[in-house]
Amino acid sequence: MKFTRFVVESEILQGIVTGKGIEEINGDIFESWNYTGRTFAEDDVKLLAPIEPNQIIGIGANFVTKLEERPDTLPNIPVFFFKPTSSVVGPDEEIVIPEGLEQVKFESELAVIIGKDTKNISEEEVLDHVWGYTVGNDVTAPQYFHEDGHWMVGKSFDTFTPLGPFVETDLDPFQVRVEARLNDVEKQNSPTELMIVPIREMIAYLSSVMTLQKGDVILTGSPVGAEMVSEGSNIECDIKEIGTLKNNFVQAKQGAKSV
Amino acid sequence: MKFTRFVVESEILQGIVTGKGIEEINGDIFESWNYTGRTFAEDDVKLLAPIEPNQIIGIGANFVTKLEERPDTLPNIPVFFFKPTSSVVGPDEEIVIPEGLEQVKFESELAVIIGKDTKNISEEEVLDHVWGYTVGNDVTAPQYFHEDGHWMVGKSFDTFTPLGPFVETDLDPFQVRVEARLNDVEKQNSPTELMIVPIREMIAYLSSVMTLQKGDVILTGSPVGAEMVSEGSNIECDIKEIGTLKNNFVQAKQGAKSV
Repeated sequence: MKFTRFVVESEILQGIVTGKGIEEINGDIFESWNYTGRTFAEDDVKLLAPIEPNQIIGIGANFVTKLEERPDTLPNIPVFFFKPTSSVVGPDEEIVIPEGLEQVKFESELAVIIGKDTKNISEEEVLDHVWGYTVGNDVTAPQYFHEDGHWMVGKSFDTFTPLGPFVETDLDPFQVRVEARLNDVEKQNSPTELMIVPIREMIAYLSSVMTLQKGDVILTGSPVGAEMVSEGSNIECDIKEIGTLKNNFVQAKQGAKSV
Repeated sequence: MKFTRFVVESEILQGIVTGKGIEEINGDIFESWNYTGRTFAEDDVKLLAPIEPNQIIGIGANFVTKLEERPDTLPNIPVFFFKPTSSVVGPDEEIVIPEGLEQVKFESELAVIIGKDTKNISEEEVLDHVWGYTVGNDVTAPQYFHEDGHWMVGKSFDTFTPLGPFVETDLDPFQVRVEARLNDVEKQNSPTELMIVPIREMIAYLSSVMTLQKGDVILTGSPVGAEMVSEGSNIECDIKEIGTLKNNFVQAKQGAKSV
């Protein structure tokens, strides 16, 4: 099923995308919900990010170019990072390049959404703890990476985590391709089997450290091909089974400053 | 005022610590609340972390030993990091040393709690956006720091962010000392004027990057003197005007594993 959040006449609603359009639902999307009976045409609503994340976790440099480049052993400590929930925007919203910067980087990713408390689970149990999948764009300003390797500031600007367009709950995450088109030119297109730390291992590992919670969103890494882009660019992050997440880059009117 | 969350007969309640004991309140602690008329003796309740953070932000290496060591210019990009909300525990709860490790580090800190949406504010406006202050212990397993400088895993284990005992809303954060006693021996005791990035500059900077939100907790850095400790140790993090946050270190029965 494809879940969506959307706005009609200033009201935030949730629904399921079906052959009829968007069928409104109410209730808790993770647990128990019902159809309200109202249906909307997708063209008549403004789509929002399909989930309000509890927390956002990303993993760095997680794709190789070819299967034969995958390392024989997984990294002892993967490069994980958090992004703030305040950085989330939805489909068609602007990505704001901070003041003083000319470019930022896009990164198309498969985003995995945790559905229930998850602690010390095995790799075999991981998919039972996943509620659904969406497309994420892990926008990054590497100019704000600390020289000692701390990525927090460069990953945390408002608008730096577009999510959408839908959450697909019926997906085989091992059989999809993560794609990106910049101004209609393909830049990324890799199957998820090119991940260095695969999804089951990634989430089992995270659950050995912390209790993952309902609504936690895990950005599973971006394929080779992400690049720096400027104001006026249009980025489409795409996983065919989920949908296309389109956003434009604009320049900030005001933004980051030094301390 | 000193706000608290606590448990009575399996029910989570909130209250204000007064001369009479803990006076129960209901409502939204940030906006509008009322006394219920019930009062409890502190000895009759179990105190919880006094706040359920929206997000937790920390700053690295933010104290000097003496005033004359403060740098003339502030760092261009401070070392910030996030900790997961799942790492929070309250007063007297156990801090669990992950399986496979013998020691972790305590760090006593002043924790600042944001009270409303905060974006692009000036240093002069910062204290108007702060709701209150508590004591935090930024527990860390540096053995899980990535060699390229990513601290996420080493900062994120469950129980690694004790907070409490109370939130003090009436506090001059520039006139307090951050202390820690390990097994009754003083290890940290510095005034907040020894911060390299002071609170006003820290929060104004963060607000230039991201929209800080109601309930965001900012751990403002730990004085010189934090050290590695083992199972069986007792740590008291203390800011006199707020209270003493006591926790014991225990060994995990199960915990982190490699991917």
